[in-house]
Amino acid sequence: MIRTLIWHEHRHEKSNKLVASLYPKGMDGALADALKQDKDFQVSQARLDDDAEHGLSQKRLDETDVLLWWGHVAHGEVKDEIVERVAKRVYEGMGLIVLHSGHFSKIFKRLMGTPCALKWREAGENERVWILNRNHPIAEGLPEQIFIEHEEMYGEPFSIPEPDETVMISWFEGGEVFRSGVTYTRGAGKVFYFRPGHEAYPTYYNKEVLQVIRNATRWAYNPGPAWKGIHDAPNVPHDKAPVPLEVKGPRLHADGEEGFR
Amino acid sequence: MIRTLIWHEHRHEKSNKLVASLYPKGMDGALADALKQDKDFQVSQARLDDDAEHGLSQKRLDETDVLLWWGHVAHGEVKDEIVERVAKRVYEGMGLIVLHSGHFSKIFKRLMGTPCALKWREAGENERVWILNRNHPIAEGLPEQIFIEHEEMYGEPFSIPEPDETVMISWFEGGEVFRSGVTYTRGAGKVFYFRPGHEAYPTYYNKEVLQVIRNATRWAYNPGPAWKGIHDAPNVPHDKAPVPLEVKGPRLHADGEEGFR
Amino acid sequence: MIRTLIWHEHRHEKSNKLVASLYPKGMDGALADALKQDKDFQVSQARLDDDAEHGLSQKRLDETDVLLWWGHVAHGEVKDEIVERVAKRVYEGMGLIVLHSGHFSKIFKRLMGTPCALKWREAGENERVWILNRNHPIAEGLPEQIFIEHEEMYGEPFSIPEPDETVMISWFEGGEVFRSGVTYTRGAGKVFYFRPGHEAYPTYYNKEVLQVIRNATRWAYNPGPAWKGIHDAPNVPHDKAPVPLEVKGPRLHADGEEGFR
Amino acid sequence: MIRTLIWHEHRHEKSNKLVASLYPKGMDGALADALKQDKDFQVSQARLDDDAEHGLSQKRLDETDVLLWWGHVAHGEVKDEIVERVAKRVYEGMGLIVLHSGHFSKIFKRLMGTPCALKWREAGENERVWILNRNHPIAEGLPEQIFIEHEEMYGEPFSIPEPDETVMISWFEGGEVFRSGVTYTRGAGKVFYFRPGHEAYPTYYNKEVLQVIRNATRWAYNPGPAWKGIHDAPNVPHDKAPVPLEVKGPRLHADGEEGFR
Repeated sequence: MIRTLIWHEHRHEKSNKLVASLYPKGMDGALADALKQDKDFQVSQARLDDDAEHGLSQKRLDETDVLLWWGHVAHGEVKDEIVERVAKRVYEGMGLIVLHSGHFSKIFKRLMGTPCALKWREAGENERVWILNRNHPIAEGLPEQIFIEHEEMYGEPFSIPEPDETVMISWFEGGEVFRSGVTYTRGAGKVFYFRPGHEAYPTYYNKEVLQVIRNATRWAYNPGPAWKGIHDAPNVPHDKAPVPLEVKGPRLHADGEEGFR
Repeated sequence: MIRTLIWHEHRHEKSNKLVASLYPKGMDGALADALKQDKDFQVSQARLDDDAEHGLSQKRLDETDVLLWWGHVAHGEVKDEIVERVAKRVYEGMGLIVLHSGHFSKIFKRLMGTPCALKWREAGENERVWILNRNHPIAEGLPEQIFIEHEEMYGEPFSIPEPDETVMISWFEGGEVFRSGVTYTRGAGKVFYFRPGHEAYPTYYNKEVLQVIRNATRWAYNPGPAWKGIHDAPNVPHDKAPVPLEVKGPRLHADGEEGFR
Repeated sequence: MIRTLIWHEHRHEKSNKLVASLYPKGMDGALADALKQDKDFQVSQARLDDDAEHGLSQKRLDETDVLLWWGHVAHGEVKDEIVERVAKRVYEGMGLIVLHSGHFSKIFKRLMGTPCALKWREAGENERVWILNRNHPIAEGLPEQIFIEHEEMYGEPFSIPEPDETVMISWFEGGEVFRSGVTYTRGAGKVFYFRPGHEAYPTYYNKEVLQVIRNATRWAYNPGPAWKGIHDAPNVPHDKAPVPLEVKGPRLHADGEEGFR
Repeated sequence: MIRTLIWHEHRHEKSNKLVASLYPKGMDGALADALKQDKDFQVSQARLDDDAEHGLSQKRLDETDVLLWWGHVAHGEVKDEIVERVAKRVYEGMGLIVLHSGHFSKIFKRLMGTPCALKWREAGENERVWILNRNHPIAEGLPEQIFIEHEEMYGEPFSIPEPDETVMISWFEGGEVFRSGVTYTRGAGKVFYFRPGHEAYPTYYNKEVLQVIRNATRWAYNPGPAWKGIHDAPNVPHDKAPVPLEVKGPRLHADGEEGFR
């Protein structure tokens, strides 16, 4: 079983009638329904206002294999310590799928190390998401392009690091392009950013969009044990070196001591 | 002229007789002497304790093309707002050379988005820095390996993102290896991490090590104007789209408004 | 079932008593025994001198999911048309594991597009293969380093393209380093080069080396259907465009015709 | 001085009135005029039918810093030995700019190791070439997009390896997208593929397109000496190792002998 956790801001649904009527179970409810179609997934949900930890206790993260993230108006309300906690779990091996406006989430910017800015327009225009490598695990079962009748435009330049793989590029009716599906590795964790998903449109009922999200969740799953030590900088004493050594020259540090951070 | 700024923690020189005697002008003084050998460089220096901004005012950063960074015991004393300021200048196009123990500096971890941890040992052992592509600008004029008689060991795994280019890999006498010269792009800025430079050894008098640092400084220089807009997420209204559009479907945003962050 | 095919030159075993006694079933026999430990693998073998097609008929390749390749003295005897056939299957999605002296095989050079040259020495020295990301699927179940008592040295510079991922780096007793485990994508196919495996040593009885080879075989497996069309350059007529168009301006080509190659 | 050589097939100009009238000096003549605007460039030209070596003698290549390549109907007429000669010069450090239909040239496929196939349509539609990193040297002085009124469409999937950098992505009126500006490193040589340049349109009079080509030429220039040894696999005898060794275990090779290829 792949233990998935859908994290959702869940604010538009409370303040906006349009979003509330489009997604009566929340955008995350639509995503949960989609993930449940894969019998290998154990699906759970957490929301910004669940509790003081945004539903993301250490225990819950430790029991999560892949985390999905959708946020928008309330990026700034996510506590820095929770962001750091999520980042550490990614380094240890938890997969992370960042959706749409999540490009500006603290966790995505934290892991990318860049502004993650872009151009945007809300005009209900056509989006065509082109698949560059149809045999990529994230593209399994998909046609060569995903057509979305109404979507928000995101346009380049998208200030992200050069991706490990650019899996998808979008064409917009208004003339822009965008790297809509990009992969990264951060420590032992795999990260996928996927563009579609504006709250004003029924994008998370689109079967092909949901197929990408299911595929990406499976792709991001790392079956190995959590790499707990990835945050440490262990000292290897001279007499425990792979090739044992005599110390030469001067020294500042004592054997086995902690390094400075 | 390439406006270079050497930022140095300058603490060991004050607390440790060995370092003080090795580097009477500070480690940064040795680096400054090396950079001054290139007549295209304008060389200046800043230190952690210079002033409340660690010598890194916005004005000074705006007038810097390439920043070099050496820190160790006092990473935690560098203010977060200054780190963010430096990161923004990198995104806008300032080059950054991170040296040795700077792998754990806030600015390097900020730009990498990963722990940047590693193994280490202070035994004065031999290091051999192998050049993978001798025609890389950073390797100009260098032999196939740089031999350093006494150095601190840094060993893999080094928890960084996959580099744009792995330019150098070190061999250590005690049996470890390390990616000692790695490049990244962050926004419009070029970043180079270079491993050698333990404060207890005369590494910053090694001619080949200094040649790498000069080469990297030149490589990291971006002559274009600062990309001030890289932090913005501009709205492109439907009637100003490259292909002007009529709005279709529902909307949440008004024309030209600020996006949520 | 993952259909694996071990291709082996099988010449040293016939001409050299040392190799013949080390590998009585051939080096490929040792590899086959190792792969058979994974019940999801269907294991078969082919050799250079099997038939006029080196055992690599189109049908056999079409029925292969992952191909392993070991060659050395007879790289030049592999027919160019067979090399091209293998390359096409890789583009369509077949995985390829290239072992040791296979760095100079026609198929590896064909897929890399570079000389794939390196330094070497046969002195029976110690090799330490360091794992950079212990949670990479290829590193599953392995310690942080694989120690091999006697191996041939391969040293940088290794003239390959920058890898997708550098998974392993070797340390050699004589002072050199080498990128020993590197991944690439070529079309829909995944490629892994793995360094150890000199014919004069019992490397292919080393449990950890064999674990890497099993892991890599599983990693390289692409379950999707063969991407037969990857070699084509289809014309998309103006009236069949995603957004149907009227032709504007002058033309050289007629509708639906073949492009020039 | 950067010694540039524009290689052109020059067949359409002889067989097609449209192309002949658009480019009375040949497409390469238009490119030469553009390069000559940079006073640091020494500009020369070679054509497929110049001589038995297509104007690409070893001497001429040895005296070339950056080679530009445009071919289309006659890719198959370029001799394999000349392709190999060009590839070797790239490995040694010569820059290579491949233009438009050159995606199917032997030299580009040779260096990429992939099919380099794509979709296409000749309908005179609008192309918008978006710049992803405006501070990349290849983008110097350019606006955020290059608008080309009439161009041939090239569409994804473009079967190339993951680029070092994706510098530009094109939007086409008919609904497709394409990675139009991509960089690679092959040995010591830098390679840039740039999409625009269909022979039926006046693209090589577009000032911004020509600016890209000039920028790329400068970017691809490697001032270092040719890396002649990159094709060799030198033996390093045990007593000449960086750390001299005694030979241990059995051996197949004699000291200093040539490796097998």
